[in-house]
Amino acid sequence: MSLRERSILSLQDLTLDETEQLLTRAAGFREDGIAPTLAGRRVCGLFFNPSLRTRTSLEIAARSLGAQSLCYDVGGMWPLELEDGAVMDGDKIEHVRDAIGKFLSGVVDLIGVRSFPDLGRPYAEAGADALVQAVEEAAEVPVLNLESTLFHPMQGLADLFTLRNHLEGDPSDHTIALTWAYHPKPLPMAVTNTALLAFCRAGYRVRLVHPSGFDLDPDVMACAQELGGDRLSRHTDMDEGLRGARVIYAKSWASHASYGNLEEDARQRALHKDWIVNEERQAAADPGAFMHCLPVRRNVVVSDSVLDGPHSWVAEQARSRVLVQAAVLHEVLA
Amino acid sequence: MSLRERSILSLQDLTLDETEQLLTRAAGFREDGIAPTLAGRRVCGLFFNPSLRTRTSLEIAARSLGAQSLCYDVGGMWPLELEDGAVMDGDKIEHVRDAIGKFLSGVVDLIGVRSFPDLGRPYAEAGADALVQAVEEAAEVPVLNLESTLFHPMQGLADLFTLRNHLEGDPSDHTIALTWAYHPKPLPMAVTNTALLAFCRAGYRVRLVHPSGFDLDPDVMACAQELGGDRLSRHTDMDEGLRGARVIYAKSWASHASYGNLEEDARQRALHKDWIVNEERQAAADPGAFMHCLPVRRNVVVSDSVLDGPHSWVAEQARSRVLVQAAVLHEVLA
Amino acid sequence: MSLRERSILSLQDLTLDETEQLLTRAAGFREDGIAPTLAGRRVCGLFFNPSLRTRTSLEIAARSLGAQSLCYDVGGMWPLELEDGAVMDGDKIEHVRDAIGKFLSGVVDLIGVRSFPDLGRPYAEAGADALVQAVEEAAEVPVLNLESTLFHPMQGLADLFTLRNHLEGDPSDHTIALTWAYHPKPLPMAVTNTALLAFCRAGYRVRLVHPSGFDLDPDVMACAQELGGDRLSRHTDMDEGLRGARVIYAKSWASHASYGNLEEDARQRALHKDWIVNEERQAAADPGAFMHCLPVRRNVVVSDSVLDGPHSWVAEQARSRVLVQAAVLHEVLA
Repeated sequence: MSLRERSILSLQDLTLDETEQLLTRAAGFREDGIAPTLAGRRVCGLFFNPSLRTRTSLEIAARSLGAQSLCYDVGGMWPLELEDGAVMDGDKIEHVRDAIGKFLSGVVDLIGVRSFPDLGRPYAEAGADALVQAVEEAAEVPVLNLESTLFHPMQGLADLFTLRNHLEGDPSDHTIALTWAYHPKPLPMAVTNTALLAFCRAGYRVRLVHPSGFDLDPDVMACAQELGGDRLSRHTDMDEGLRGARVIYAKSWASHASYGNLEEDARQRALHKDWIVNEERQAAADPGAFMHCLPVRRNVVVSDSVLDGPHSWVAEQARSRVLVQAAVLHEVLA
Repeated sequence: MSLRERSILSLQDLTLDETEQLLTRAAGFREDGIAPTLAGRRVCGLFFNPSLRTRTSLEIAARSLGAQSLCYDVGGMWPLELEDGAVMDGDKIEHVRDAIGKFLSGVVDLIGVRSFPDLGRPYAEAGADALVQAVEEAAEVPVLNLESTLFHPMQGLADLFTLRNHLEGDPSDHTIALTWAYHPKPLPMAVTNTALLAFCRAGYRVRLVHPSGFDLDPDVMACAQELGGDRLSRHTDMDEGLRGARVIYAKSWASHASYGNLEEDARQRALHKDWIVNEERQAAADPGAFMHCLPVRRNVVVSDSVLDGPHSWVAEQARSRVLVQAAVLHEVLA
Repeated sequence: MSLRERSILSLQDLTLDETEQLLTRAAGFREDGIAPTLAGRRVCGLFFNPSLRTRTSLEIAARSLGAQSLCYDVGGMWPLELEDGAVMDGDKIEHVRDAIGKFLSGVVDLIGVRSFPDLGRPYAEAGADALVQAVEEAAEVPVLNLESTLFHPMQGLADLFTLRNHLEGDPSDHTIALTWAYHPKPLPMAVTNTALLAFCRAGYRVRLVHPSGFDLDPDVMACAQELGGDRLSRHTDMDEGLRGARVIYAKSWASHASYGNLEEDARQRALHKDWIVNEERQAAADPGAFMHCLPVRRNVVVSDSVLDGPHSWVAEQARSRVLVQAAVLHEVLA
């Protein structure tokens, strides 16, 4: 089974072997550099939301492989219609079937799409991954999800790559605490969802740690429980959840219960300002290697001492974004 | 006569032979791919209005030819003074003679410019093609019009290319209905003007179809009548205009009469919501192959069934933008 | 002493020999073209303020050298925290140590940064060169200042390059009048500061000419006086300051005294609308070759006749931005 010409909207689209194939390729690129295997190919990134890390990684990866990189900020300027049969007399100026299907996917070899939810709208209206899925359906070429409402598979690969670099032996010997942390604003859940499912499926022992009221999407949780079985545990006390953990993966996210209600979300999260990964909590872990996808609020989500300390894997995690992105492009297009 | 180092602000700048030379080159690129004949050359696109299709085409064409592509969104941030002798104590921050003449055209090999009219201002103040012409006058290098108030020659070449791919023999044996269609907002006329003049000059039988009150610029019409002679007819009834046509080219545009008066334009266009290219009208054509430059409002300008039907040339038309753009860059710079 | 892997935040970071090395390299590129000595290298430009000339120069220089160029407009979208130990619960979304240190400087080979002051805030709060310096401290790779509150070294190199192309023999035989001119808005002082220090240090005879109340930063002036000694003179009368000068370098800037007080600045500058470099003043110079960094307000800062006249070096000055930028990238990275 090959990844050639395949779309990746979620890591669930890949078998464990295929994930392994990508991580092995990324490791090869780290050793030997990235060779120009994609000369003459064209990679297009459409960013409906701002991005620096993901965009930079895509551009560097594509160009290092010798491909053309065409990245565009299309937020605001390009409201796409997704519905079949829509009578387009409103504010949508183009249908995804035309923009992507008739035009773009006929002139490039791969399309990446980033599209966040509007966190001020109810979860049911946030569109799940409607835009990314519609682009994939309309396109004649492979599509990569560069972060949607639900998933962020390129980040998930960088996370797995970082874990694999450090944790040897049976994954179930290693405990990862995937923990919510305080942040002044509600954030998307894509990174958390992706990490939770990926870590469970890879066989790690996973602790999902968050205050009550900050549950994830029920479908994602059901999937995680199926994948993780009794290797997955849940904790609503941060100290308990982090104690003894090999790895602490921190990430803030919106309250699912009050999603779309910014006032209620603010009230809920304000109750948990003490949810910070600090030196004391890391000292109670074993050794509590620290991971975060960045950007991160220092001394709010994590203390300087942990983020810059000897057990921080954050720089490696961020920089490996380029390697896994190049691995994906190579395996899909070369 | 060579196209080398020539500017193209309108297809009227080209002889029929030169147009043919470009279309032949585009066909060659379709067959053989685009070879890197422009290594070390630099192509700069200045977009005073948003663009995805035109910008993508320019970037892909330039890079596929081996040139550097430098495309910038300069709308809003860069109000250029165009008047000679102006005392620049207002809101214009730079004169076109300095930005383009003294600087940009000294460091790149070709400049493309897109600059739409403000449809909320009277037609006489919309500046016609003042900006594009001023850039061409100031520049020491060739300038391409990437869509101005009056013309969109790169789209026009893609349109001619598409027609040439399908219509054989004497052009005057083929009837093209160039028709207005309903759209909730006033749109520029550049695509229509360009297509009208290009189709007339190429020798096709052309029907210009629009509701009364939606006339085009009188100078453009005079030119069309001279080029088209008795092969050009005008129709204010959509059914009549489309009946029996080999090709239906749809495009909405602003009311020239009420240009700059958004309220009056809205009132005028609302009277013609039934101006849609649908299955019934296509059935009365012969066979009414459908063309549109995109983006298009589905089920407003054209029905899904026509746009996605067997006689739709829209995908080919859009994708050929890259081929004709590459042909232009090659002929002008190689 | 080599420039390899060195940051350049100010021309004061360079010895005179190193400056000479860069100008010689730029002259070589002008003669022989720019060869691709940086294949596989990655250059990233972060523009917290708009730029066309500087960005274009960086992109052309990087690509002509064979490097990847990654330039991003990050103004507004990316408020970086600079303070060590900050508790980031406000509007700053990422710390410079993470964005630049942990991520970006691990995946690119050089970072350029442009960050202007907010001219509506008091000078003490304008942050001097805090952002550029913080980026340099956080980065593991060389950092170039692409214009900060205090300095614009890439412009300064282009200015020195232009002077060197025209002025032979002992620099102290040549008088450069660096003069303020009227402009309807307050502008940053980085170009003036850079030119003043660079011209003094290079040994030219420099006249600093501005209305009283438009003094520069006292630290910059102290440095200029040390570098220039009795070759530096100050003038508050434009006619006197320009009389007999070999070169007239014009630039408007904000009132230091009323910095951050837009109303008072407007009142002050309105008193000096007659500060324009015109034909009459040039006629009294010898010959008063005209320089300006662009963009320039025609017939406000300088008359058309001077800007477009036989003694205007402005086009050469602007176009040499690409050459000196390429020289810097080559010497730092090759």
